[in-house]
Amino acid sequence: MALMLRAALGQMEVAPGRPDINTKTMLEMMEAARQRKAHMIIFPEMAIPGYLLGDTWEQPGFLRDCENYGRAVIEASRGICVLFGNVAVDWSKTGDDGRVRKYNAFFVAGNGRLHGEDNFPYPFRIKTLHPNYRLFDDTRHFYSLRKLALELGKRVDELLQPVNLEIAGEKISLGCILCEDGWSDDYSVKPIQEICSNGPVDLLVNISSSPFTLGKNNKRNRVFAGQAGKTGVPLVYVNNVGIQNNGKTVYTFDGFSTVYSGKGEVLHHCAPFRQALEVVEINLFRDGDCSPGVMPPDDRGAASIYQAVSYGTERFLRSTGIERVVVGLSGGIDSAVGAALYTRVLGPGNVLLVNMPSKFNSLTTRNLSMKLAGNLDCLYTVMPIQESVDYTVEQLSRTPVTDLRGGKEFNLTIAPLVMENIQARDRSARVLAGIAAAFGGGFTCNANKSEMTVGYTTLYGDLAGFFACLADLWKHQVYQLAEYLNEQVFQREVIPRGIIDIVPSAELSFDQAVDQGKGDPIIYPYHDYLFRAFMEHWNRATPEDILKWYAEGLLEEKIGCKPGLVKSIFAGPAEFIADLERWWRQYTGMGVAKRIQAPPVLAVSRRAYGFDHREAQNGVYYTSEYVRLKSSLLGD
Amino acid sequence: MALMLRAALGQMEVAPGRPDINTKTMLEMMEAARQRKAHMIIFPEMAIPGYLLGDTWEQPGFLRDCENYGRAVIEASRGICVLFGNVAVDWSKTGDDGRVRKYNAFFVAGNGRLHGEDNFPYPFRIKTLHPNYRLFDDTRHFYSLRKLALELGKRVDELLQPVNLEIAGEKISLGCILCEDGWSDDYSVKPIQEICSNGPVDLLVNISSSPFTLGKNNKRNRVFAGQAGKTGVPLVYVNNVGIQNNGKTVYTFDGFSTVYSGKGEVLHHCAPFRQALEVVEINLFRDGDCSPGVMPPDDRGAASIYQAVSYGTERFLRSTGIERVVVGLSGGIDSAVGAALYTRVLGPGNVLLVNMPSKFNSLTTRNLSMKLAGNLDCLYTVMPIQESVDYTVEQLSRTPVTDLRGGKEFNLTIAPLVMENIQARDRSARVLAGIAAAFGGGFTCNANKSEMTVGYTTLYGDLAGFFACLADLWKHQVYQLAEYLNEQVFQREVIPRGIIDIVPSAELSFDQAVDQGKGDPIIYPYHDYLFRAFMEHWNRATPEDILKWYAEGLLEEKIGCKPGLVKSIFAGPAEFIADLERWWRQYTGMGVAKRIQAPPVLAVSRRAYGFDHREAQNGVYYTSEYVRLKSSLLGD
Repeated sequence: MALMLRAALGQMEVAPGRPDINTKTMLEMMEAARQRKAHMIIFPEMAIPGYLLGDTWEQPGFLRDCENYGRAVIEASRGICVLFGNVAVDWSKTGDDGRVRKYNAFFVAGNGRLHGEDNFPYPFRIKTLHPNYRLFDDTRHFYSLRKLALELGKRVDELLQPVNLEIAGEKISLGCILCEDGWSDDYSVKPIQEICSNGPVDLLVNISSSPFTLGKNNKRNRVFAGQAGKTGVPLVYVNNVGIQNNGKTVYTFDGFSTVYSGKGEVLHHCAPFRQALEVVEINLFRDGDCSPGVMPPDDRGAASIYQAVSYGTERFLRSTGIERVVVGLSGGIDSAVGAALYTRVLGPGNVLLVNMPSKFNSLTTRNLSMKLAGNLDCLYTVMPIQESVDYTVEQLSRTPVTDLRGGKEFNLTIAPLVMENIQARDRSARVLAGIAAAFGGGFTCNANKSEMTVGYTTLYGDLAGFFACLADLWKHQVYQLAEYLNEQVFQREVIPRGIIDIVPSAELSFDQAVDQGKGDPIIYPYHDYLFRAFMEHWNRATPEDILKWYAEGLLEEKIGCKPGLVKSIFAGPAEFIADLERWWRQYTGMGVAKRIQAPPVLAVSRRAYGFDHREAQNGVYYTSEYVRLKSSLLGD
Repeated sequence: MALMLRAALGQMEVAPGRPDINTKTMLEMMEAARQRKAHMIIFPEMAIPGYLLGDTWEQPGFLRDCENYGRAVIEASRGICVLFGNVAVDWSKTGDDGRVRKYNAFFVAGNGRLHGEDNFPYPFRIKTLHPNYRLFDDTRHFYSLRKLALELGKRVDELLQPVNLEIAGEKISLGCILCEDGWSDDYSVKPIQEICSNGPVDLLVNISSSPFTLGKNNKRNRVFAGQAGKTGVPLVYVNNVGIQNNGKTVYTFDGFSTVYSGKGEVLHHCAPFRQALEVVEINLFRDGDCSPGVMPPDDRGAASIYQAVSYGTERFLRSTGIERVVVGLSGGIDSAVGAALYTRVLGPGNVLLVNMPSKFNSLTTRNLSMKLAGNLDCLYTVMPIQESVDYTVEQLSRTPVTDLRGGKEFNLTIAPLVMENIQARDRSARVLAGIAAAFGGGFTCNANKSEMTVGYTTLYGDLAGFFACLADLWKHQVYQLAEYLNEQVFQREVIPRGIIDIVPSAELSFDQAVDQGKGDPIIYPYHDYLFRAFMEHWNRATPEDILKWYAEGLLEEKIGCKPGLVKSIFAGPAEFIADLERWWRQYTGMGVAKRIQAPPVLAVSRRAYGFDHREAQNGVYYTSEYVRLKSSLLGD
C-alpha cells in the first residue's frame, strides 16, 4: 500500500474581514490545483473570514456571511479534497459571553460534502488550544475543544480523533490541527500526541494564521520537524500571507508553508510573503524513499527585517488606499530610512519629502536632507517653521488671560521645553498634516522603538502620522536597516554616510547642536538593551531585576549589551540608579500616555507596542525589594 | 445555634498597580474594624495589586511584591478574620503561556494563618469563571479553576468546596466566590450551586472588582438577590471604588457593596463611589428574624451619569497628577459641559477656558462662550486663529515643491475641506497644546460618542487632548448632562440656554453657519440610536440587519429611537440607504483610524470605545445578504 499524495499548498493572501475576496481566491486556487492534478488543496486557518478582526465576530450578519461563503467552497470541492479554516457557528448554543457559539474550525470537504462527523460531534474539527498571550485573543471569541469536552462531560483526548477519508481509492487518516495546537509545550493537553494515539494517522496537517516575527520561522521549523520526526508522520503546515491588524498593531504574515517528512526533514517550503499555490508530492505510508531535505533560509537578519517592513508597509498602504505619502525629513537616520523605504514601495513620484528647518537646525542636517532627497529623486520642498513658531510664542505669551473671579489679567510664559514641543507640533500637525491633505495622501510617523519606549517624542508632533513602520525597531536595528537599504536594496549610497554617522539629535534647541556632537539623551548601545529587558523579555524585567544584576555584575550578560559598557557609562551606583529611574519613569509614565495616542505600529519583534503590550496608565512603581536594594547599594 | 456575625465591608479605594498603598489602606481598615468589634472584614477582589494592570502581571518582581504584601495582611489578622483578593503565584507551575502560574485568588486568614487547605489543593480559593468579553482579560493572565480541574483530572464540582473556619466559637462554612463566579448564567459551570451542594454553606461572599456601567447595579441586585433567595444563604458582595484603566479606556468602580439576606432582601448597601468601612450584623443560621430590606437607588439616570463622569474625571486627574486644565470653548454643547464639569472638579482658578474664533465663528457662539466663562468664573482668554490659519494656507500653497526627477516645480492647492482641518488642528495642536504646557496642565478632548463613532472629528484637532471624559456619552446624553448640571449641580443656569438650544455645528465653514440654522450632518435623534445598534448591541447590528428592519417597518422599535422618525427624515429607500452606507463607511473606515489615535475614554455605557470595543482597520464591508436586500429594495 502506498500513495503519492499530490497536495496543493494554498498559501493565499487573506484579506481580513473580506470573505468575498478570500472565497474568490480559494475558488480560483481550487480550480488551478484541480488542473494540476492535485488530490488535495490545503488553505490556512480562518481562510474565509481572516483572523484578526477585532470584535467583528459579534456581528451575527458577518457570521452568516462566512457560513454562506464556506458552503460555496464546500460545494466547489468536486474532484478535489479541500481543507480550510473558517469560523463555525452553532446557532443552538452560546459561548461564555452569552453570544452565539463560535468555533475556530478546520473543515475537510470532498465532492461537495464534509468529512469527519463519524467520530466527532460536528462535521468539522475545532481548535483545542487557544493562544491568549501577545496579540492573540482566541479565547475572547471562540469556544475551544477543552471547553466543549468539559460541557459534554468527555475527556479532551476522546474528542481528538483523526478525520478518515478516501483519496485515489486509498483510505487515509488525517490529523487535523489548528495553529496553536502545534505549539503545545506549555499546555497540559498535547493535541498531536492525542490524535496520533487515537490513530494511526497518515498525515498531519497544521493550518495556521501565524504572524511573522523576526526569527519565528526558524523556531517553526524546529518545532514542526520535531513533531513529524517524533511521530513518524509527514506534516504539512499551511500559513497565509498578507497583513492583518488589531488597530494599534499591524502584523505581516509570512506564509512559509512547509512540508516535513516523517523523518523530520523539510521536503519543501513556499517563499515567504508571497501568495503561492504549490503542489507537493508526499509519499504516504512509506515515508522512507522521499527526496532529501531542503534548507529553509535563516529569518533573523537585516534581510528579514527589510522584507517584513517593506512588505508590511506596501500592504498597509494598499489596504488603507493611501497612494502618496509625505515624509518630514530632518537629516537624521529615522526619517532617512522612512523616506528610502516609502520611495522603494511607492516610487519617487508619490513621495513628497519636506524639510522644515527652524533656527536650531544645522546647515549639516539641512544639506544631508537635500542630498538624500536628491539621491531618491523624490518630490521635495523646504518649509521653514521659524516664523510660525515665533508667531505662536508671541500670540500665547502676549494675549492676556483674564481671571474672571476678579477681572485681573496675566500673561503666560513659554519655557524652553514648551518651545521645543511647539516646534515639533508645528512641523507635524500644522505643516505635514496640511501638506499631506493637499497632496492627497498621509504623512508618516518615523518614530523608532527606543523613542516609543520612553516617550522621547512629542504628541501631535513627531509621534503623529498615519503609520509608524519603524516603531518596532530599536535604534540599532534602524541603522542596520539603513546599511541594508544602501548595500542590498538600492546598491548605492542613497542614505548619505553623513546621516548614518551623525550623532542622533532632535535639534529642538542649541543644547542639541549636532555639529558640537550634542544630541539625544538616550545612549542607544546601552539603553536599547535596557528597554528591551523592560518590554520584550518573556519575564519582564523591572528595576528590581536590573539593579540586582548590576550589583551582581551580570547586567550586560542578562540584557545582552556589550560587556564593559555599563562601567564605561556610569561612574557608580548613584549615577546608574538615577539613569535607571529616569527611564523607568518615562517608560511607565509619560511613555504610556503617549503610546495611547500613537499611530499604528508595524510589528517585527516578538513584542510590539499596542495590542501585544497591553498597558495601563497607572504611573510609576518600585517594588519594596527594589527600594531595599537601592538603599543598600547607596549605603543609606 | 445562632451567630450574629459582625462583618465589616471593606469598600476600599484600590490604587491599581500599587500594592504598597492598598496594603496600607487594608491594614488601617483592619484596625478600625477590630476596634468596632467586627468578627470579619471583607476586601474586594485583587485588593492588593489592583485588577486592570495591562501586562504588569508578566513582571516576576511585581508578583513577588504582591505576595509579600499579602503576607503582611495575613500576619496582621490577629483577632479578626480577613477575606481579601490577591494574585496567588505557584512558582512551580506554568500557565498556558509558559510564564509562571498565576491565580486570581480569594484568601481567608485568621490569627496569622490561612484557612481552606483541608479541602483544596492550595491554601486559598481561585476564580472559576474568567470573563473574557468587553474589557475583561482574566484568561490572558490567570489560570482558572476549570483549567486546574482539567490538569488534575478532577471534576470542576469536586474543587468547589466551602471554606470551613471558626468564628466566635461557632463553626461556619463560607462559600467564597470571585466576581464573575456570581454571573454564571452563560457558563456551563455554576459555582454557587456547586459550592452549596458541597455545603451546607452559612454565608456566601462575593468579592469583586466590578466596574461601573450605567444601570449595572440594578442588575447586580437582581442577580445577587436571586442567588441569596434561591439558596437561602445570606450573601455579602464587596466591590472596590476608585478608577482603573487599560490605557485606552478608563473605568470607574462604584463599590455599592451590599448585604443580602437569605430571603433575597437587601439588608444594607454602601454608598457608591466612596471609600467606606461599614459593619453589618448578619444573623447566620437563623435568617428569619432579620431587619426588613432597604431599597437601593436606581442607577440609570442623569444623576448616575453625572456621578460617574465627575468621579472618574476627578480621579483620573489625581492619578495622572494634572491639577490644571485648558478647555477650548466653541460655544457648543460639548465644550460647555466639559468646562462646567472640570470647573466643578478642579475649581474655577484651575480651569483656563479658551475661545479661538476664526472668520467662520458667529458672534452668537463667541458671546455664548464668554457668557459661559462668566457664569463659571474661570480663567478666560480669546486667541483668534485666523491669522495663523491664513499664514499656513499661504505657506503651504506658495512654497514650491520640486520634482527632483526633472527639476520641475509645482504648487499645492488647499481645498475647502483641507482648510477646515487646518483650522481644527491650529486650535488644538498649536494653541491649546501650547497654552496647556505654559499653564502647567493638560487640555481636554470634548468629543462625544456620536462623533467618535463616525470620526466626525479632526485628528490632532478636536480629537486631541489628555482625556475624553464625554466620549462614552451619546449626544442626547450630553444634553441630559447639561440640564442636570444646571438644575441639580450648580442649581443655576451656568450653561446658557442659548448653548443648549443652538443647532450643533463645527463652524469650520460658511456652510455650517449657526445663525442660519446650519450645522452638523449628524441627525442625532436618529443617528445616536443607529450608531448604538452598530456598537452597543450585544449582537451588533450591521447594515444587513438595519436594512431588514427598515424593510419590515421594525427599525425604530429595534434601535429604540422615536416612532415615525425614519419616515420623516428619509424620502425613500434610496435616501435611507445612502445615509446608512455613509455612516457605516465612516464607522468602520476613517472612524477606526481616528480612534486608534484618540485620547483615553471614560467609560459609562456597557460598551465604551477602546479596549471594550476591539477593532481592526480592515475597511468597509457589506455582507452578500445586504447587497441582495439593497438591490431588491432599490428595484435593481
